[in-house]
Amino acid sequence: MEPTMSLFYGISVISAAIAFLFAAYLYVWVKKQPQENNRITEVAQLIREGANTFMKREYKILAVFSAVIAVIIFLLLPSPIWKTETLWKNAAMALAYIGGTVLSAIAGKLGLIVASLSNGRSAEAAAKDIKPAFLVGFRGGSVMGLIVVGSAVLGVSVVLAIVKEASILLGFSFGASSLALFAKAGGGIFTKTADVAADLTGKVELGIAEDDPRNPAVIADNVGDNVGDVAGMGADLFDSNVAALTSALVIAQTLSGTMNAMMVLCYAALGLLASIFGIATARISKNGTPTGALNSSTYVTSAAFLALTAGATALFGFSWYIWGCSALGLVVGVVIGLATDYFTDDSKPIVKKCAHASKSGPAFTVLSGVSYGFLSALPAMIGIAISALVSYKICATDALIAEYGANFPLFGISMAAVGMLSIVAMIISNDAYGPIVDNARGLAEMGNLGEEAIRVADELDSAGNTVKAVTKGFSIGAAGLTVISLLGTFMSEANAAGANIAGFDIMNPTVFFGILVGAAIPAVFSAMLILAVDKNAQRMVAEIHRQFDTIPGLKEGDENAKPEYDKCIDVATSGSLRELIPAGLVAIFATIAVGFIGGPSAVGGFLLGNIVSGLLLSLFMSNAGGLWDNSKKYVEAGNEGGKGSEAHKAAVIGDTVGDPFKDTAGPSINTQITVVSLVASLLSAIFVQYNIFG
Amino acid sequence: MEPTMSLFYGISVISAAIAFLFAAYLYVWVKKQPQENNRITEVAQLIREGANTFMKREYKILAVFSAVIAVIIFLLLPSPIWKTETLWKNAAMALAYIGGTVLSAIAGKLGLIVASLSNGRSAEAAAKDIKPAFLVGFRGGSVMGLIVVGSAVLGVSVVLAIVKEASILLGFSFGASSLALFAKAGGGIFTKTADVAADLTGKVELGIAEDDPRNPAVIADNVGDNVGDVAGMGADLFDSNVAALTSALVIAQTLSGTMNAMMVLCYAALGLLASIFGIATARISKNGTPTGALNSSTYVTSAAFLALTAGATALFGFSWYIWGCSALGLVVGVVIGLATDYFTDDSKPIVKKCAHASKSGPAFTVLSGVSYGFLSALPAMIGIAISALVSYKICATDALIAEYGANFPLFGISMAAVGMLSIVAMIISNDAYGPIVDNARGLAEMGNLGEEAIRVADELDSAGNTVKAVTKGFSIGAAGLTVISLLGTFMSEANAAGANIAGFDIMNPTVFFGILVGAAIPAVFSAMLILAVDKNAQRMVAEIHRQFDTIPGLKEGDENAKPEYDKCIDVATSGSLRELIPAGLVAIFATIAVGFIGGPSAVGGFLLGNIVSGLLLSLFMSNAGGLWDNSKKYVEAGNEGGKGSEAHKAAVIGDTVGDPFKDTAGPSINTQITVVSLVASLLSAIFVQYNIFG
Repeated sequence: MEPTMSLFYGISVISAAIAFLFAAYLYVWVKKQPQENNRITEVAQLIREGANTFMKREYKILAVFSAVIAVIIFLLLPSPIWKTETLWKNAAMALAYIGGTVLSAIAGKLGLIVASLSNGRSAEAAAKDIKPAFLVGFRGGSVMGLIVVGSAVLGVSVVLAIVKEASILLGFSFGASSLALFAKAGGGIFTKTADVAADLTGKVELGIAEDDPRNPAVIADNVGDNVGDVAGMGADLFDSNVAALTSALVIAQTLSGTMNAMMVLCYAALGLLASIFGIATARISKNGTPTGALNSSTYVTSAAFLALTAGATALFGFSWYIWGCSALGLVVGVVIGLATDYFTDDSKPIVKKCAHASKSGPAFTVLSGVSYGFLSALPAMIGIAISALVSYKICATDALIAEYGANFPLFGISMAAVGMLSIVAMIISNDAYGPIVDNARGLAEMGNLGEEAIRVADELDSAGNTVKAVTKGFSIGAAGLTVISLLGTFMSEANAAGANIAGFDIMNPTVFFGILVGAAIPAVFSAMLILAVDKNAQRMVAEIHRQFDTIPGLKEGDENAKPEYDKCIDVATSGSLRELIPAGLVAIFATIAVGFIGGPSAVGGFLLGNIVSGLLLSLFMSNAGGLWDNSKKYVEAGNEGGKGSEAHKAAVIGDTVGDPFKDTAGPSINTQITVVSLVASLLSAIFVQYNIFG
Repeated sequence: MEPTMSLFYGISVISAAIAFLFAAYLYVWVKKQPQENNRITEVAQLIREGANTFMKREYKILAVFSAVIAVIIFLLLPSPIWKTETLWKNAAMALAYIGGTVLSAIAGKLGLIVASLSNGRSAEAAAKDIKPAFLVGFRGGSVMGLIVVGSAVLGVSVVLAIVKEASILLGFSFGASSLALFAKAGGGIFTKTADVAADLTGKVELGIAEDDPRNPAVIADNVGDNVGDVAGMGADLFDSNVAALTSALVIAQTLSGTMNAMMVLCYAALGLLASIFGIATARISKNGTPTGALNSSTYVTSAAFLALTAGATALFGFSWYIWGCSALGLVVGVVIGLATDYFTDDSKPIVKKCAHASKSGPAFTVLSGVSYGFLSALPAMIGIAISALVSYKICATDALIAEYGANFPLFGISMAAVGMLSIVAMIISNDAYGPIVDNARGLAEMGNLGEEAIRVADELDSAGNTVKAVTKGFSIGAAGLTVISLLGTFMSEANAAGANIAGFDIMNPTVFFGILVGAAIPAVFSAMLILAVDKNAQRMVAEIHRQFDTIPGLKEGDENAKPEYDKCIDVATSGSLRELIPAGLVAIFATIAVGFIGGPSAVGGFLLGNIVSGLLLSLFMSNAGGLWDNSKKYVEAGNEGGKGSEAHKAAVIGDTVGDPFKDTAGPSINTQITVVSLVASLLSAIFVQYNIFG
């Protein structure tokens, strides 16, 4: 069969359509599940309204921001309009940028809608049996997974089909990234502001349960799960997926023939189909556990992807070497996930050690988490390093380079990233399942569904926590590989603009300058986000204290005393919206400053330093945070003295430290790295022309 | 005047001799100060014995280790003995290695002797007036400063004068580094084991004062100050100084003529003389403070260095460009120090913010310290990046390269490092002053010298803490610049062995592989050290509890109940000796593994990744630790609720987390980086020949 680009545009669009149809089916299925408890309906309504308020205000700010950026892009990129003869390219780039932001926003918003439908229904199902409760949570999450990945595949192929020039995709990808950066940061600040403030005032000061409805922050906490862990995470993975596809397509365009570009589209479509298969077949088996169900559907999806791509490779005559790179990427992703799991799963020794250290006091909880967090970075860094090295070497034979061109080995690395992210729809489903069942647990408590429902919801929640580690391994690993190929993209773009760069030599002090500055940025970015949570949570604690002091009977648990949930939501909303822009801008401005100081060589170094320290810090923070969270849960399950013991108090402090680590700063670094890489590629021509030391 | 190498060997030896004589004078001066209080004499004796026991056992282990390494060096380096025709070089390298370890050990040991003479005398002087107490503490520290730097200058010039080949100096430098790595790690584990255990059982559990003699760990804590902060720190800066001189001399040898090598020796000697001048004139001025005295003598020394080197440059016709690089290095060192000071000085806003965050609980103390620690890395990273870039550019003109050779710009960077470290004798004096007056404070309390003596000792101690920040800025900055030039050294060595490397391109996946693995190592190294402190401190807490339970009247404060101080010292000693080797070996083995896997390109990447993440993590940990320590002191001074308040409890937890950050892991990373760089340079020929992917 003689493949053509049109064929694969068709396949991509069809696979996206199937994903959307399946998502619609799951949406209807979730909506049909019973929601009868009045209290739950009422609270779920409050959560939905809070989330909508936040998203509306956030999107309003981001719309203004995006409009400004779109105008700048139109004026300057790919070349300044006063210099270019192909004005349509500037228009296409600006439109692609807007398309990226809009698709990201829509995917986040739809995910949020389904999540807020699912949590109450999952809670009510939990009162009956674990299996249907699991299915409601998982399918609710899957709707977002399918929409996010369907939009990514659709968007990339439509943009490419129209403009036929992969570099315009950089604009689309930048749209997705810039929205993700702020959605992730803003949502991350919101969710942890509420979580930390609710824990401090509720659990620590009053000694009431996590989701006690007396606590004025409890609804804000649930809203946070939705806007941070659902909408933010969706935007994040939309971005990663688009960036991986974009960099693979940009590199493919520098190779001879169109075979490689077809391959990228084909693999992306097959990854989506494999995920649909995995999602459709996911359920708790007889005598099975929710963790088992989530993990086995991940493996089913992976196997399906490998089989489908092998078939396609044989059918269309794609390169088997590249298939090998994708397969390697996928396998390394699983291995990284398992290593992460080792450091954060409470059935493994590390969590137990951290819980045991809590017996000596909170300082030891913190030191133990920091240490194991540092250690946990090693396997993932080695995994990424090896998959990059091996993918490159597989494709670096003289024969392959002669056939396809000098960039073929780099294409191998980018396809390892595509392979690692191929099952991303499945990953998002697993990830979004977490906050849905977390909310379900809260609703079960607030709706008085009884001990058994809470226990079931707890079991579902704990599975979500465990599986998160595996899926996080994929997303961090894939981000690492993607930015390596984005570094290649940056070099191609700079050379296309006349830079004549053969590489970035670390012995070149301009490159070295960039590396050191780039390495400091993820630390600065993380610090700003953590300080934002810190500042905001203190504001919310003050608001909660005000309510306790002025609303009679609230603190004592009087049934008629109504907390003002909306005031807390408002504190979290305005605070996070005020804080979300500066951290992102610092990263973008640093890139631009380095570019104007040191030119493209310094920017190359900057990107490298940023990747290296970004990977290290995000692995450290995500894993340490997960470790502390699960250590606390382990103590609460009755170990090392159980609830109320000194060890428990220490473990709660560890968990509070870990909250902004794992849900605000850690996972935002990915996006920060991608944004910076794309800014560099987009502005490469300008850096080549204007700089001081380059 | 026509300069020759012999002239500068002479100048170096004479300046070292002056330093030794002046050290002897100060030693006698300190010894002549009165020590009359029996209790102090007795306790000082206990501290001395404890420190001696530890050092003896540590040096015994390190002697075995060094002997093994010396044999390996003799067999393999610079080339395997079965292949070489210049066997004397292998012998010289092995002897130089032994010389490095022995000089480092002697300097550490002598520093320890004087420190333990000074602390009691400083305490007794404090009962009279602050000025003499300051002088005793400062001069006690200066003895070590003078010996350390005198030995470094003497050792480097004697080795070079004998073998006339700078690459043999790598062996000498490796001797200094490998000893420093273990002395710093071992001492760092010891000191924080005792400090943390003493604080937890004393301050937190019993609510007794820091240096209460009832606490069985109190002597071990004082011993720790001596072996970690005096002997360990001395070994560390001996290593940095030797490494900076070595890399400058190795690069100078690749340039035309001997002018540049002379310049290195000349500047090193003048730095020593400038420090002698600064030390001799240091005293508290009328109405002055100890902080003012320490800082102003640092500035006096810097000014003297700049003036002396300008004179020498004019007199001998050295390159003014290189003088500029050294001056820039020194100035940037001061700036980095001031930036560090901004983040850790309790009269500046950051410490106050961290103390204020403690009011919301320990989790906020930790989050605030982590965030500001991350932020604090930025100015230093930028400072190092700029001094490397500017030094390189100053020396990269066509005329200069034509005159001296292609490596001249790299020489400029190495001389920026030499400039930054030129005043190191002064820095060590300031640094060693800290633990001496810290001990003096303890002795004043144990010797019942009265409130006023304790207040004076406290004031001296607080000055030590503040000044430490400035001096730490120098040592971390200089380590950064030194390792850049060591990277150049590695490349020269690899090329001399036939590697034919033009640079390390980050787009080369073998280099990239090395970078990622190298970046993970400082995190792993830090984690191992922190876990060692954690484990060890828990052992010591158990021992203290045992004593409280079995020695009647001890807990209650009965005068006749004698704690078994030696048991605690023994726990700290055996624990730290058991844990000090593995962390160091992991770093060394990782280098070797990367070399055999990826060859010299991977090793170049590995060194870069190691430098970048090492700088970031050491700045983060040192500064966060200093910030927590001073926040605690700020609260204890009566702010945010003062002693005994909830904020104080939270601040103590922050301080405990910070202890191993700032005194074990943070400052050991410097040495880890240097060791790894030297291992790479020494083994470069082997990596060139044997590797899998390179």
